[in-house]
Amino acid sequence: EYVARPAGVCTMMRLPYQETALGLDAAFIGVPLDTGTSNRPGARFGPRHIRGESSMVRRYNISTGAAPFESLMVADIGDVNVNLYDLKDSCRRIREAYQKIMAAGCIPLTLGGDHTITYPILQAVAEKHGPVGLVHVDAHTDTGDTALGEKIYHGTPFRRCVDEGLLDCKRVVQIGIRGSSYSANPYDFCREQGFRVVLAEDCWFKSLVPLMSEVRHQMGDGPVYISFDIDGLDPSFAPGTGTPEIAGLTTSQALEIIRGCRGLSVVGCDLVEVAPVYDQTGNTALTGANLLFEMLCVLPKVKVY
Amino acid sequence: EYVARPAGVCTMMRLPYQETALGLDAAFIGVPLDTGTSNRPGARFGPRHIRGESSMVRRYNISTGAAPFESLMVADIGDVNVNLYDLKDSCRRIREAYQKIMAAGCIPLTLGGDHTITYPILQAVAEKHGPVGLVHVDAHTDTGDTALGEKIYHGTPFRRCVDEGLLDCKRVVQIGIRGSSYSANPYDFCREQGFRVVLAEDCWFKSLVPLMSEVRHQMGDGPVYISFDIDGLDPSFAPGTGTPEIAGLTTSQALEIIRGCRGLSVVGCDLVEVAPVYDQTGNTALTGANLLFEMLCVLPKVKVY
Amino acid sequence: EYVARPAGVCTMMRLPYQETALGLDAAFIGVPLDTGTSNRPGARFGPRHIRGESSMVRRYNISTGAAPFESLMVADIGDVNVNLYDLKDSCRRIREAYQKIMAAGCIPLTLGGDHTITYPILQAVAEKHGPVGLVHVDAHTDTGDTALGEKIYHGTPFRRCVDEGLLDCKRVVQIGIRGSSYSANPYDFCREQGFRVVLAEDCWFKSLVPLMSEVRHQMGDGPVYISFDIDGLDPSFAPGTGTPEIAGLTTSQALEIIRGCRGLSVVGCDLVEVAPVYDQTGNTALTGANLLFEMLCVLPKVKVY
Amino acid sequence: EYVARPAGVCTMMRLPYQETALGLDAAFIGVPLDTGTSNRPGARFGPRHIRGESSMVRRYNISTGAAPFESLMVADIGDVNVNLYDLKDSCRRIREAYQKIMAAGCIPLTLGGDHTITYPILQAVAEKHGPVGLVHVDAHTDTGDTALGEKIYHGTPFRRCVDEGLLDCKRVVQIGIRGSSYSANPYDFCREQGFRVVLAEDCWFKSLVPLMSEVRHQMGDGPVYISFDIDGLDPSFAPGTGTPEIAGLTTSQALEIIRGCRGLSVVGCDLVEVAPVYDQTGNTALTGANLLFEMLCVLPKVKVY
Amino acid sequence: EYVARPAGVCTMMRLPYQETALGLDAAFIGVPLDTGTSNRPGARFGPRHIRGESSMVRRYNISTGAAPFESLMVADIGDVNVNLYDLKDSCRRIREAYQKIMAAGCIPLTLGGDHTITYPILQAVAEKHGPVGLVHVDAHTDTGDTALGEKIYHGTPFRRCVDEGLLDCKRVVQIGIRGSSYSANPYDFCREQGFRVVLAEDCWFKSLVPLMSEVRHQMGDGPVYISFDIDGLDPSFAPGTGTPEIAGLTTSQALEIIRGCRGLSVVGCDLVEVAPVYDQTGNTALTGANLLFEMLCVLPKVKVY
Amino acid sequence: EYVARPAGVCTMMRLPYQETALGLDAAFIGVPLDTGTSNRPGARFGPRHIRGESSMVRRYNISTGAAPFESLMVADIGDVNVNLYDLKDSCRRIREAYQKIMAAGCIPLTLGGDHTITYPILQAVAEKHGPVGLVHVDAHTDTGDTALGEKIYHGTPFRRCVDEGLLDCKRVVQIGIRGSSYSANPYDFCREQGFRVVLAEDCWFKSLVPLMSEVRHQMGDGPVYISFDIDGLDPSFAPGTGTPEIAGLTTSQALEIIRGCRGLSVVGCDLVEVAPVYDQTGNTALTGANLLFEMLCVLPKVKVY
Ligand SMILES: [Mn+2]
Ligand SMILES: [Mn+2]
Ligand SMILES: [Mn+2]
Ligand SMILES: [Mn+2]
Ligand SMILES: [Mn+2]
Ligand SMILES: [Mn+2]
Ligand SMILES: [Mn+2]
Ligand SMILES: [Mn+2]
Ligand SMILES: [Mn+2]
Ligand SMILES: [Mn+2]
Ligand SMILES: [Mn+2]
Ligand SMILES: [Mn+2]
Repeated sequence: EYVARPAGVCTMMRLPYQETALGLDAAFIGVPLDTGTSNRPGARFGPRHIRGESSMVRRYNISTGAAPFESLMVADIGDVNVNLYDLKDSCRRIREAYQKIMAAGCIPLTLGGDHTITYPILQAVAEKHGPVGLVHVDAHTDTGDTALGEKIYHGTPFRRCVDEGLLDCKRVVQIGIRGSSYSANPYDFCREQGFRVVLAEDCWFKSLVPLMSEVRHQMGDGPVYISFDIDGLDPSFAPGTGTPEIAGLTTSQALEIIRGCRGLSVVGCDLVEVAPVYDQTGNTALTGANLLFEMLCVLPKVKVY
Repeated sequence: EYVARPAGVCTMMRLPYQETALGLDAAFIGVPLDTGTSNRPGARFGPRHIRGESSMVRRYNISTGAAPFESLMVADIGDVNVNLYDLKDSCRRIREAYQKIMAAGCIPLTLGGDHTITYPILQAVAEKHGPVGLVHVDAHTDTGDTALGEKIYHGTPFRRCVDEGLLDCKRVVQIGIRGSSYSANPYDFCREQGFRVVLAEDCWFKSLVPLMSEVRHQMGDGPVYISFDIDGLDPSFAPGTGTPEIAGLTTSQALEIIRGCRGLSVVGCDLVEVAPVYDQTGNTALTGANLLFEMLCVLPKVKVY
Repeated sequence: EYVARPAGVCTMMRLPYQETALGLDAAFIGVPLDTGTSNRPGARFGPRHIRGESSMVRRYNISTGAAPFESLMVADIGDVNVNLYDLKDSCRRIREAYQKIMAAGCIPLTLGGDHTITYPILQAVAEKHGPVGLVHVDAHTDTGDTALGEKIYHGTPFRRCVDEGLLDCKRVVQIGIRGSSYSANPYDFCREQGFRVVLAEDCWFKSLVPLMSEVRHQMGDGPVYISFDIDGLDPSFAPGTGTPEIAGLTTSQALEIIRGCRGLSVVGCDLVEVAPVYDQTGNTALTGANLLFEMLCVLPKVKVY
Repeated sequence: EYVARPAGVCTMMRLPYQETALGLDAAFIGVPLDTGTSNRPGARFGPRHIRGESSMVRRYNISTGAAPFESLMVADIGDVNVNLYDLKDSCRRIREAYQKIMAAGCIPLTLGGDHTITYPILQAVAEKHGPVGLVHVDAHTDTGDTALGEKIYHGTPFRRCVDEGLLDCKRVVQIGIRGSSYSANPYDFCREQGFRVVLAEDCWFKSLVPLMSEVRHQMGDGPVYISFDIDGLDPSFAPGTGTPEIAGLTTSQALEIIRGCRGLSVVGCDLVEVAPVYDQTGNTALTGANLLFEMLCVLPKVKVY
Repeated sequence: EYVARPAGVCTMMRLPYQETALGLDAAFIGVPLDTGTSNRPGARFGPRHIRGESSMVRRYNISTGAAPFESLMVADIGDVNVNLYDLKDSCRRIREAYQKIMAAGCIPLTLGGDHTITYPILQAVAEKHGPVGLVHVDAHTDTGDTALGEKIYHGTPFRRCVDEGLLDCKRVVQIGIRGSSYSANPYDFCREQGFRVVLAEDCWFKSLVPLMSEVRHQMGDGPVYISFDIDGLDPSFAPGTGTPEIAGLTTSQALEIIRGCRGLSVVGCDLVEVAPVYDQTGNTALTGANLLFEMLCVLPKVKVY
Repeated sequence: EYVARPAGVCTMMRLPYQETALGLDAAFIGVPLDTGTSNRPGARFGPRHIRGESSMVRRYNISTGAAPFESLMVADIGDVNVNLYDLKDSCRRIREAYQKIMAAGCIPLTLGGDHTITYPILQAVAEKHGPVGLVHVDAHTDTGDTALGEKIYHGTPFRRCVDEGLLDCKRVVQIGIRGSSYSANPYDFCREQGFRVVLAEDCWFKSLVPLMSEVRHQMGDGPVYISFDIDGLDPSFAPGTGTPEIAGLTTSQALEIIRGCRGLSVVGCDLVEVAPVYDQTGNTALTGANLLFEMLCVLPKVKVY
């Protein structure tokens, strides 16, 4: 029966809740952590609010024809219980939680949380799949080395991943990059690794369908992880985030990017940096919920009408 | 283990979720309906936000010594699936849902929703317990007869209850009543039925402990229902509601009222009219969550340290 | 004399208020109803806030040269007194109110209210003009059949209009359509009727001037009604609405659509689904006010410099 | 017929609008000026929002039995057209507008606007009635002399009134005064004139009924003006104002003050300093609307049940 | 050492604060005035909030390679102490403050304040440099003559500049102009002076790089002032402003405009009309901070990598 | 000269800024840390917003006659540069910063930040003064032992202080304590140490002047530290905080508490837990600014008129 939108205990898309990933093809999971944030905190409430607004998302993707729930077993498996007072211990907790998900053969779709969390997630993902290709949408490369002597916060996850060999660096693309910098050559590191860096300036005023054709070629058949920092979007589309940068991507471009990943061997996805307290309308969380649904729709084996 | 406050799929006080009331002594249940609202809508999202903020509420009531979870089986049983487009059909749906709860021998603690819902809830409650005593906290008596020809909206539930004999009228008290009126003698109906009407003016600047002593005497041993309209509180304490009236009760008085119900034969409770979109901080929903916990703490058989 | 923007009892564009449409060529009228809303309510306050923000709108349309007040008698005729507690009775009240407006030979420009209201408005319009062509801007087709057994809510008005023969179906265009769906083929109904459905995806990154040239051809000389659901716009432009969908139209495209209707035989217009409580800046209401002014500017007989 | 709360072109309490005060016993009138504000502006939108929220206020005052509309002809006469760019010219415009109201024999109830406006209003009032007694509720005495060389802004109106002999200084009371100061002895001026200054500290935790008994005695039979700065209230009750000061009056005390003026020869009233943009819920404007209604209820000749 | 973003007494980009412009090549300076605003006030707090959000802006401009702090001595020199109660006296205060800055040979980068302030700023600038070219981004031409008899407010600064010969009129371009008007031919004045008026409609859907090539040619070698009214941007990008107009520029276009000024002889810049109270997320202030940084990056003599 | 309230680079009360405490009797200092927060983060921006709102606070305390700036050298010395990514390292940084302040013989008045910071502050204070008496206003005792294995977060500072002998436990009072608990006997620890615990319930409806007379006696002549958690106040007065608890203290009681400390040997003060993003009006930050000023006013040697 049709359920009124405001009704129901709040899970992602009002899916069934279960405690573990056992028996699932894909699972939505929250990581309510934001203590890796350099500016405005609040992403710890990202999972709660993305779930809340996800009641607007229906089961069929008309634009692409995808019907994920006809092909995959999907549930909401709740949140990782993070340690808000020790970021490194939280990383351990996240890694261990995702090792269990990977062991269950389930594809995780993560509701962040700040971008720090992608580092321990990728530790677990690469442990199973080996170094992964990465489609990374963000205003920032997140490849800093340290801040105040710290190696772990939301500005460094992909540097840490490179350090540990979790990425197949030739199969990394970063889209939407922009903003001012602490140094004159901040993208040198990325390019030295072989990453493709697509600046926001190169995306202005146009469709990203051609870019994604190239990205699919770049990614090839290997395992691919999608990491979507909501601040890759322009702040007009996603005001509710911690480190906004002006002149970013549009939501239409975001859809083109994710939909352009269809056919890739996607082994995991995340949507991070939704900070609800800066999102008075809930529309940033709603955007996050839609983007997560779009990611689900491009997973391998999803039926398309 | 301690769970971080932002973590967890969102149920009331992060209690287990179950689909029915079977096996429970008490259950939290949401009724996400607001189409009976005369002014600002939004209470349909009351259950979602009260659950969200309830992560601040811990298991022991230090002020009263109550430890409800040591005595009672309690769960969150989700929401009634209301019909947002037909208020009368929603009333039928609510009544039927509560008939099942009553049949299970479970005490319902309701997260509203606008005050319309108390009418069908009391139909189910009185069907089991006979006419009930009522502790009603509100800025309004909610005993109007009709508006625009309609007999059912959030201004009339207790008139409808009187019409159907659901209330033991000598055991009804209405506390916090105030505001302007459409007629010169709006309380005449209440007093003719035998209700005690306690005006907000008579509560200003003082403790309500003495009042509650009288209320307990008034209620005696019969079944009692507690209906708490959050607009009974002053708008400074509960801005997030649809028909605020100035110069109302304090939260300390609200606690005195509910705590003053200990010892009564409470058979059901509701907390209604939280409209989260007018509650930017979430503090009205938080207040609602606390008041519901306090109601749980005065249920019969709750252990007190 | 110049009037300070904050000054004046609040009518649309600070026009004179009169109680009926008698003597007017066109009239602004509010329908403060939102009980047909499936998700976030609040559109009942759309008329009040659109009027408030309309003090920013001046009398001449520089972009198009239109000077509507040099050609037409226009006033604000207040609001339909809706029945918030019975949606079907509200439809009756709206229909009767618009029958009077049509009888006066006046073109109504409606400040909604949720989209349910277009159904009874079109009953009155078609009663006078026969089946009308429709330029419908929206994220949704609003051609659902029922929800929870109900045939009338904001997801069904154009299905009801088809049922009653109020539309000249070959002269219907729906622009901006997008979002997920409850079924795999949601546009089949529209296309079977002969509607043209223009998806948002087909509007991204480009001007709609060419589309509107085709639309004018489609509409021909017959009577045309313009129904503009503010959620046709992207939520970045119109956050204050009840069922936002990401990746929608821009306000520049909205202006192109409305301005592209010049020359058509427009017999009525509405702007619906502005929900001010989700519009903290007032900019959604301001957008609504501007779009209504633009509609006024394309009415037949408006002088153009 | 009952009118739905959101319906209707927005006048104070949805009273009829008329352009002048002719034929009225009392009139609501707005002065949308805030350029006399020293800190947070926004009171220019006070009249619009007080009118909007006043749809919650009904016709009978149950607490006092007053039925003003059974005794007095009352209407909303719109706003004074202020000059936002020249404060002194605005004062001239206000004075002239009120001279016309006074000439019509009508009692003005003003929706401010910042407190600067009381100075030109009292020029017009005293021109008719001679020096008036004053019941002034405020956090501030508003008796500064100059700021930056300026003699006119919202910190000086009552100094200017003293300068011009508009006040009967022995019949002035200022209630709710508090806050830090630019000098060690800021109340000396007031007390030298003979004003009674009632500090907020002297109002904490108690009823002001005894105070008002003394005030009535102080005021005697002469003409009295009530000037209520909403910042006299504590910011918890009235967040939406420009120069909030902590630890102020409660709304219950505000009601006691105004109701305590019954029997006085009230010749005019104002409610100033509501700044809606700092009042997200609208509850400060709602409070202003209620207080204005209470002032209406204590005008001479109002029938009491 | 890296400084945590929330840390530090709040100056623009956390630059050193000094009281005067002596010894500086360029200086950020605030003008916290908003009493020239015709609609929503609040820009008086623009400087405070632009400074606050500027902690997100880092020292290198990656997109353009500019490294302004390697070439120029820059500091924050605080705010002009305006007279909030007399707009004309504020203009005198501003002019005198800028005369001192110009005398110090320092380029001012101004944090507004409403657009009125550009008039006295240009008095001081032209006193030193003679009539200047102007790159003016705005929704409005700001060339009105009077309102309510007043010659000075935020709708008239450039008319006043023309009156006084402060502009080299053939070297004036106004970009982003749109919105309704009080008359049929509002741009006649501008064009008669020789201004180039670029309507927003002519900017929709496309890059402004070609336009800026023409503008550079128009400006030639003479002194140029950049005046950027944040309402030139679409309200989706800059909700926090006083007189928003729909369908404006994007932030990517804003960057193209400012970056397109590289090579010109820029002698001063301002960013005006940020009204923080309408900017709940702070993102409009953040946009303002970024645009001011971009202006700094195109000053003469800035090193580019 | 009088400075307009919005003007000036933002320091506490617009005092001069200096980099160190040298030569000062008292200093305002910020600690922008919130990673010890268990629920809603945001207190990292407390210092910035308290400074911003402090422009409302003037130099003389009329209520008490205190004129602190006539007796003491006071400045704003900026913020401690915290490590947002490692709470324990932040504690080290804070401790070292305060050791320098203490060495300078200056009394620190701290703008928090969450309550974690009081632990390292008291390490520095007790290092100089020996174990201190404590006037602690809070909803919570903050004497938890661990959470998720962590010994340091905002729920444990005073347990850690006891562990390290920083408090003179017989001279500790905790005022405003309330809320639910994780265990049945949460105050046992406090009472075993000899703390006086004053529950919020014991403060309702009454003046705290008598309590403070007892507290002064309890504190005697020894050194006293005042730690004021803004959540000690009721959420109606201080909505902008991270772990609100209903039914708390009023601001008038807060003033009574602080003013009641006059005569004690106060060696340091803090005001913590202001989370501006939950404080849309700024009034919580304004309250914090006022309370800090009141603390300054009761420092030893402050002149009283
Ligand atoms: Mn990132
Ligand atoms: Mn990012
Ligand atoms: Mn009620
Ligand atoms: Mn009520
Ligand atoms: Mn629609
Ligand atoms: Mn729609
Ligand atoms: Mn005042
Ligand atoms: Mn005041
Ligand atoms: Mn401008
Ligand atoms: Mn402009
Ligand atoms: Mn604490
Ligand atoms: Mn606390």
